[in-house]
Amino acid sequence: MANNKRGRQSFALPAPPVITAWASIAGKKESEGPLNHAFDLTSTDTLFGQQTWEQAEKHMQQLALDTLAAKANVSKREFDIVYSGDLLNQCIGSSFSLKNQKIPHLGLYGACSTMAESLLLASMTVGGGFGDKVVAMTSSHFASSERQYRFPLGYGGQRTPTSQWTVTGSGAALIEPTGRGPKIESCTIGTVVDLGIKDANNMGAAMAPAAFATIKAHFSDLHSGPQDFDLIVTGDLGTLGSELLLQLARDEGINLGGKLTDCGTMVFDIQTQDVHAGGSGCGCSAIVLCGELLNKLRSGKLKKILFCGTGALLSPTSTQQGLPIAGVCHAVSITGGR
Amino acid sequence: MANNKRGRQSFALPAPPVITAWASIAGKKESEGPLNHAFDLTSTDTLFGQQTWEQAEKHMQQLALDTLAAKANVSKREFDIVYSGDLLNQCIGSSFSLKNQKIPHLGLYGACSTMAESLLLASMTVGGGFGDKVVAMTSSHFASSERQYRFPLGYGGQRTPTSQWTVTGSGAALIEPTGRGPKIESCTIGTVVDLGIKDANNMGAAMAPAAFATIKAHFSDLHSGPQDFDLIVTGDLGTLGSELLLQLARDEGINLGGKLTDCGTMVFDIQTQDVHAGGSGCGCSAIVLCGELLNKLRSGKLKKILFCGTGALLSPTSTQQGLPIAGVCHAVSITGGR
Repeated sequence: MANNKRGRQSFALPAPPVITAWASIAGKKESEGPLNHAFDLTSTDTLFGQQTWEQAEKHMQQLALDTLAAKANVSKREFDIVYSGDLLNQCIGSSFSLKNQKIPHLGLYGACSTMAESLLLASMTVGGGFGDKVVAMTSSHFASSERQYRFPLGYGGQRTPTSQWTVTGSGAALIEPTGRGPKIESCTIGTVVDLGIKDANNMGAAMAPAAFATIKAHFSDLHSGPQDFDLIVTGDLGTLGSELLLQLARDEGINLGGKLTDCGTMVFDIQTQDVHAGGSGCGCSAIVLCGELLNKLRSGKLKKILFCGTGALLSPTSTQQGLPIAGVCHAVSITGGR
Repeated sequence: MANNKRGRQSFALPAPPVITAWASIAGKKESEGPLNHAFDLTSTDTLFGQQTWEQAEKHMQQLALDTLAAKANVSKREFDIVYSGDLLNQCIGSSFSLKNQKIPHLGLYGACSTMAESLLLASMTVGGGFGDKVVAMTSSHFASSERQYRFPLGYGGQRTPTSQWTVTGSGAALIEPTGRGPKIESCTIGTVVDLGIKDANNMGAAMAPAAFATIKAHFSDLHSGPQDFDLIVTGDLGTLGSELLLQLARDEGINLGGKLTDCGTMVFDIQTQDVHAGGSGCGCSAIVLCGELLNKLRSGKLKKILFCGTGALLSPTSTQQGLPIAGVCHAVSITGGR
């Protein structure tokens, strides 16, 4: 058996799995942002025709999967596995979206790192010959998240300057052993990093140390560095977390300047859309990857990126119990290609 | 690249990964049950020395991982990946247990199917050469579950006759490419099955159709049947769900009688421990597998089992919104061996 393990936290894919198709579904605010051109479907109805926001989130995942199947020109029943998760308690957005679809499903919880986590597991599955058509998918919804994590929307609470805006959207990608499209070369699995941050409205700061730890591990395990990538894309630290990540890297002599960008700052116009520190939520890095980033990798505008999904590990219960917020970050190295 | 896919939902492991070590931690009620001899550690303190039940659950996972490392005679830092998840909102039992441990972590949500899901992913990881020492782990806690899913314990609500008792416990298993111990031969990934059951106090009935669908898929994909196994162990349908599963199988001409057992009925003495329909929770199948079952597979008392982790997919929010409970079941075929 081939040993694909690299260093402490990483693995390589000697026969790189191909991302053959991708789809993104976005809400109204996202459609008013700078990446509108890259979404497959947008809706001005926050309920997406459903009765509750949780059901809207489920429906977004169904739309993402349907759109993915249509773009890949396959039937959904041909999908071997769907790896998916979301932010809702017990991940009901993901599990309910696959009810009675007869598609094998493995549920994940990686908070906002879920797009990277699902992509990593899909590439492992395809790379190991355990599946031929494997889907990585996730979603988030502003309204379902706000009421679960913070305040009921009707309460009209003021948002703090460091807060981020949960993206309403869902993204899905299809990974196959061969075909045309961007390829997954290697992945780095994150560890849970906790530096003691307790402000549930400053998630970027809580996640930045985890992002740095994973990026550093990726460079070390795969003998690479910032020079090997067109972009190092975190998702989603927002403006404050990104600054902190740059600083953490600089302190250890790693210059990420010019290479680092963040899905949370790409998805909205920070100056005009009143989102404070930027976008967040599983859906944020999902719709940026399964739109703008993969489009540019396919067209050759990007040659290689390190996609770093960042998740804040907390719950309302842990916050109420006075516990700090940990972070995790999983990284996927993707090369361009038609 | 080898094609290890089998049929619609399954994969084989031509070089079967080995479960080289396992550990189980159990609470007071579980230690009073018939499997007490098989647990590594038990506690009469429901808080496990912590301040809250959620922290107790986190601590049980830490004890499970520490015990696993000690039994395997390795340092925790040698673990390549820990796959884990639990029932707490945002899976804080799992993520908090790994804080600052520098162990790569991939978070799962599979409800009570998590032990099987993590084992399945660990075997895929080892089978594909992506890791050499991979851990599958999960937990549940009666008190943290009751207050999150049903009623505050102090309320003293009556339990319905169909209800199951969430196990307080945590189990962990170490999977390696070679070594001594039971081996994982093949796995079947479940689909989300919803037959419209809405009673959150009758989870066994909600999960039985998913269990049957996966067992049937396993037999079909791997060209096997009940005759190939000493035991087909679900975890955890309880008494009612098990009866329903037998009936569903009988209706399609499959006789599971004599082979079928359930972790929820094994872990407690149903007659004397006042648990109604049996045990449940991620920890239930985890401590039964990572104790009694793997011990018997190692000693040769069992030659081959099909371990079928069953999960009820719901949240308090979905129940309050009047939605039915879906089920999922993942199956792992394990052969005995020293």
